[in-house]
Amino acid sequence: MEYVLHPRSEIDARIRKLQDRMGELTGVIIFESTDLGYFSGTAQEGLIYIPRDGQPTLMIKKSQDRAGQESPLPVQPQRSLRSLKADLNLPAGARIGLELDVLPYNNYLRLEKALGEDIAFFDISETIKHIRSVKSDFELRLIREAARILDAGIATVADNLKEGMREIDLAVAVESTMRVLGHQGIVAFRRFNQNLPLGHLMAGPSAALPSSVSSPTGGRGMSLFFAQGPGFARIKRGESVLVDYAGCYNGYIADETRIFCVGKISAKLEDAHQAALQIEEAIAEQLSPGKMSRDIWNLSEAEGERLGYRDFLGGPPGSKAGFVGHGVGLQIDEYPVLGPLDHEIVESMVVAVEPKMIYPGEGVVGIEDTFLVGETGAERLTRLPQEIWRV
Amino acid sequence: MEYVLHPRSEIDARIRKLQDRMGELTGVIIFESTDLGYFSGTAQEGLIYIPRDGQPTLMIKKSQDRAGQESPLPVQPQRSLRSLKADLNLPAGARIGLELDVLPYNNYLRLEKALGEDIAFFDISETIKHIRSVKSDFELRLIREAARILDAGIATVADNLKEGMREIDLAVAVESTMRVLGHQGIVAFRRFNQNLPLGHLMAGPSAALPSSVSSPTGGRGMSLFFAQGPGFARIKRGESVLVDYAGCYNGYIADETRIFCVGKISAKLEDAHQAALQIEEAIAEQLSPGKMSRDIWNLSEAEGERLGYRDFLGGPPGSKAGFVGHGVGLQIDEYPVLGPLDHEIVESMVVAVEPKMIYPGEGVVGIEDTFLVGETGAERLTRLPQEIWRV
Repeated sequence: MEYVLHPRSEIDARIRKLQDRMGELTGVIIFESTDLGYFSGTAQEGLIYIPRDGQPTLMIKKSQDRAGQESPLPVQPQRSLRSLKADLNLPAGARIGLELDVLPYNNYLRLEKALGEDIAFFDISETIKHIRSVKSDFELRLIREAARILDAGIATVADNLKEGMREIDLAVAVESTMRVLGHQGIVAFRRFNQNLPLGHLMAGPSAALPSSVSSPTGGRGMSLFFAQGPGFARIKRGESVLVDYAGCYNGYIADETRIFCVGKISAKLEDAHQAALQIEEAIAEQLSPGKMSRDIWNLSEAEGERLGYRDFLGGPPGSKAGFVGHGVGLQIDEYPVLGPLDHEIVESMVVAVEPKMIYPGEGVVGIEDTFLVGETGAERLTRLPQEIWRV
Repeated sequence: MEYVLHPRSEIDARIRKLQDRMGELTGVIIFESTDLGYFSGTAQEGLIYIPRDGQPTLMIKKSQDRAGQESPLPVQPQRSLRSLKADLNLPAGARIGLELDVLPYNNYLRLEKALGEDIAFFDISETIKHIRSVKSDFELRLIREAARILDAGIATVADNLKEGMREIDLAVAVESTMRVLGHQGIVAFRRFNQNLPLGHLMAGPSAALPSSVSSPTGGRGMSLFFAQGPGFARIKRGESVLVDYAGCYNGYIADETRIFCVGKISAKLEDAHQAALQIEEAIAEQLSPGKMSRDIWNLSEAEGERLGYRDFLGGPPGSKAGFVGHGVGLQIDEYPVLGPLDHEIVESMVVAVEPKMIYPGEGVVGIEDTFLVGETGAERLTRLPQEIWRV
């Protein structure tokens, strides 16, 4: 259970993909730590410059020795921003791609001032997100391990769930299990204002509370400033207990949801759960190369309507989630988005599919599994039984 | 152990502080969730517009009911960005302050396009950071509770540390203890590319490894993509075990470090620990209203040199931390920064002071405590004994 280092061939292939899609750009400068790790093999503080033609330059601020052990690329010290144009040998009139979806405005401004007015900047973030959405065999091995850790974490609920215990006490059992198996303790989110520790565990009405998190379910949480996930509510007999976690191994994520219950859930929620399972199955059948995310979203919506759950699938009218699935990898909000968008489904994408039925004031049922898009169909990587777990 | 809601008087006072410092601005639009929670009492997805004169407008996207229960301000639905200028009744030529240190470039661009060319934008983030650095009695009660949770978490190390156990297994004991006491499971960092779960626990050489985190110590971590904090190394007899955590209660943070050891630490490291205690004491004596952060930094450096630890205090030459302390509150990297900067120390600031001696290849000793700046001197809020804990 140790660090998995990136072979040079893996990094070279990633860099080549970006170079092939640079169009008229002179090159791309990567600052965001997840992207930096993806393209260089180290997420130490620094940057990587990837020219359209030629070799990349990896510059690290503080921990050059460490970065040198982690990355297969040569490491240079990063000097001041002021010297960056010379250090990278950028030509006058260079056209530089940046991660403008995540780079703070002031960081952009400092860079613009340092590089001078004859350098033009362009957003390369969409290209990076599309490249990262298709996983290599190297990455798939890590995601499979993340799924194993995740299965082990969620399965502990069966051993620990007791009537009357608090959500947080049960959540700690899941979190501790995954931590000792190698979970880094935090799940990377790309979107502004989004953060996630390891996942969500909520019972009954608190699972159905909407929150600021980009997810169909929210939770009350333990604080106004992080008003999501498990709280102090006590779990009652007959409540649906939503257990929605992200496993993580060497940075890579798998995402899974299972429903637990002390005793027996209501027939209405049991039926809704079965409908969610049908919808996941229908989606999984369509999750193959060449399909479009919009068609899968439409299929999900049509199935929800056909089964009689239009007003519950993904949330009630007014707070319905705009997607029924999302890519996972180094971040939990990767491409493709299974929503009304035109993301093409490509072989070796990894997608979490999460049809959930949300009943405000009552609870949440449904399912989430992480699927690998194969040449001819989808393989389910998260492997726990999908029925409601009764304890 | 429930949510602590903000009284209207608390929110009004915070808004007034910002209004008093707006200068020539027409108003400020706040998007970042921590700032939003600070100025409105809810961190649900949305924004607050604070005009220089008059009443604020709180607009929430998804969870208006929930935001209405959390915030003492009236809640409006947030419609599209396109209608924002009309919804906020912004005059032509308005001068609007934004959090440009954290707002991603693309978010800025969308706002600029939506509001039109006759609106000018300015950075208000420094002003917000200075306002937030001085805590109210309401906030201090929460920080005191965070310190109690933190003391309880770190103290569990004494009961759980055994020779040969892995860093991560000991870390889970600390994390679980704090989680069930109300820790939200994540610690907010303002700076780009910085993330923290609950804290760091590393033994011997791994504590002295530099990392990408803004801290004098790093750790190996469990993943290239989160290469900090506890890893899989086994704790040896005689190693210094660095336990550096952030307690958290209702969003508010306290920060503390203690050193543990199975058996006896070397005389060299024991002496270095005593020197760190002397430096913290010298700093605490100077931490009073009217002092400047630069003077405290200089004092720390001078004490380190006088005691013979110039090349170890805060890290070895080349990777030395640029500060010996930092404000804490809703984020762990608040003002004042006890570094070579001109931040004035003001009554009711809360500052973590952390002189640490770093020996690459050997380990880290030293101390960190969270202090409240009182009218005449500093009060230590983290209360555990400061000597090396031997088990």
